Amino acid sequence: MAEFEFIDWLAAELTAKHPPNRVLTIGLGDDTALLPPAPHGTLLAADMIMDGVHFDLKKSGPQLAGRKALAVNLSDIAAMAGTPTNVTVCLALPRIGGEQLAKEIMRGMLPLAEQFGVAIAGGDTNSWNGPLVISVTITGTPHEHGSVQRGGAKVGDWICVTGDLGGSITAKHLNFIPRIDEAKTLHRQFGLTSMLDLSDGLGSDLRHILRASGVGATINKATIPISAAAMDKAKQSGKTALDHALSDGEDFELCFTLPPAAGAALIQAQPFGPSLGVHKIGEIMQATGLYWEDGTPVTATGYIHQMK
Amino acid sequence: MAEFEFIDWLAAELTAKHPPNRVLTIGLGDDTALLPPAPHGTLLAADMIMDGVHFDLKKSGPQLAGRKALAVNLSDIAAMAGTPTNVTVCLALPRIGGEQLAKEIMRGMLPLAEQFGVAIAGGDTNSWNGPLVISVTITGTPHEHGSVQRGGAKVGDWICVTGDLGGSITAKHLNFIPRIDEAKTLHRQFGLTSMLDLSDGLGSDLRHILRASGVGATINKATIPISAAAMDKAKQSGKTALDHALSDGEDFELCFTLPPAAGAALIQAQPFGPSLGVHKIGEIMQATGLYWEDGTPVTATGYIHQMK
Repeated sequence: MAEFEFIDWLAAELTAKHPPNRVLTIGLGDDTALLPPAPHGTLLAADMIMDGVHFDLKKSGPQLAGRKALAVNLSDIAAMAGTPTNVTVCLALPRIGGEQLAKEIMRGMLPLAEQFGVAIAGGDTNSWNGPLVISVTITGTPHEHGSVQRGGAKVGDWICVTGDLGGSITAKHLNFIPRIDEAKTLHRQFGLTSMLDLSDGLGSDLRHILRASGVGATINKATIPISAAAMDKAKQSGKTALDHALSDGEDFELCFTLPPAAGAALIQAQPFGPSLGVHKIGEIMQATGLYWEDGTPVTATGYIHQMK
Repeated sequence: MAEFEFIDWLAAELTAKHPPNRVLTIGLGDDTALLPPAPHGTLLAADMIMDGVHFDLKKSGPQLAGRKALAVNLSDIAAMAGTPTNVTVCLALPRIGGEQLAKEIMRGMLPLAEQFGVAIAGGDTNSWNGPLVISVTITGTPHEHGSVQRGGAKVGDWICVTGDLGGSITAKHLNFIPRIDEAKTLHRQFGLTSMLDLSDGLGSDLRHILRASGVGATINKATIPISAAAMDKAKQSGKTALDHALSDGEDFELCFTLPPAAGAALIQAQPFGPSLGVHKIGEIMQATGLYWEDGTPVTATGYIHQMK
């Protein structure tokens, strides 16, 4: 069972049998929940990162691990076009050196928290014999034009991404800038219909938009923006740079849809300048599935977390 | 360094140097934060539990572990006299059997969530080679008479606890009822001045109220309510039952203060009947420190999480 199937199972259990969950404006299965009262309410999301899985503490050091724990949560708020407000931080610390580790984790987190106006509201520290775990929960304020969910893509919409894709493992996954400001600008100026942040790779994540929206898509090989890191990796991996752009996880760029006229205006405007390009990579279509421009299916699935 | 000293360090860092933290109505160091806008706002707290530390998965099974992860967070909301509303659940799952484990954890959590009207709003599942970690974050609505913080105890106030103390490890830590309803009733009917939930033992936790309030206390040996489990433990441990009542962690009962007239009315009324007694255990005094009625210092410190 993949993680998204577990979330489907849980969401079905909850909405069918669990009265409290029926009051949520947005529940399980999107980048964040939206707690009542609508239309404003509070965005809420949580992401946990673990030594040996999402970072290698020996290589990254504690400051970049702490920074990443916050950044991945900020990216979830960005995916809704929201503004982050508060976090809680729970730590499972190795027994020896835990105090210094905890302080360094917070020192790595605080500059990013301050940059995005996020308060550290609470949390929990624990010691154990296992590896370091950092679990962060984030709250946020919805966009004044509403939250951008995964399920709003319409036939004919353009599909766009920010930045370049692939090869994040080389460095970007530890030092990326969450696209908070960009997401808010995009939704305010161009009226997005759906969005998520790319955490498992375009070939996997775009399918979540398609599934939630009940649509399909055609994407164009020549227009997928490929990072320099993906090109470097391709020289040694035996895979193409395009494979890396589609299947490497942790890009933490935005993938979103918008009506064609707004899309054309956006691509023309390039509101973030040359340092962060916005690229059209395809279009939403009626027939479900994900296809290349020549009609062949896209087989890249990105990273799928399998639960055994 | 003890965990509370780390929280002091962090709170000082944050309020001195970190502008976003200055907007919190209640910040680090209480049972929950209170997010603006005051006076209503949102309560927010987080607690993480780990296999081998807070439960033994082989003995408890996944359902009771899941139940406990929610219950300890509910207890934090109770400590503010709040009403819980939503949780996020992050799981670090062993690679083999993770799917079944995740479902059983949720099956253990859902009846308690439903009992207290709590929605499961989101979360994150991960697999790794380490032991099970369950990290829950909870939101809540403050009490209509305001949130009961740790720092409000006044000289002359009575100190009371719900229930009996000690020996929770025998069974109660896995099946306790969070005192949500009791805390709301107590604050509505009797006007509490300070409160927390007993997680590290009375001998440790009461000191947090004293420190936050800038006061001291005298407690009375004969009035500390000792559980049957604490008496059983004392038969084998070489410690007294009173030692267990003061020092065993995870009672998850309420410890609170209130003015003497309200205290007398409460003890007379016993609003929860014979199944859950409310006991006066001492009084707040000017001189700092924690003393027995004969003037000797209380040496029991409860469980103090040391970070090395």
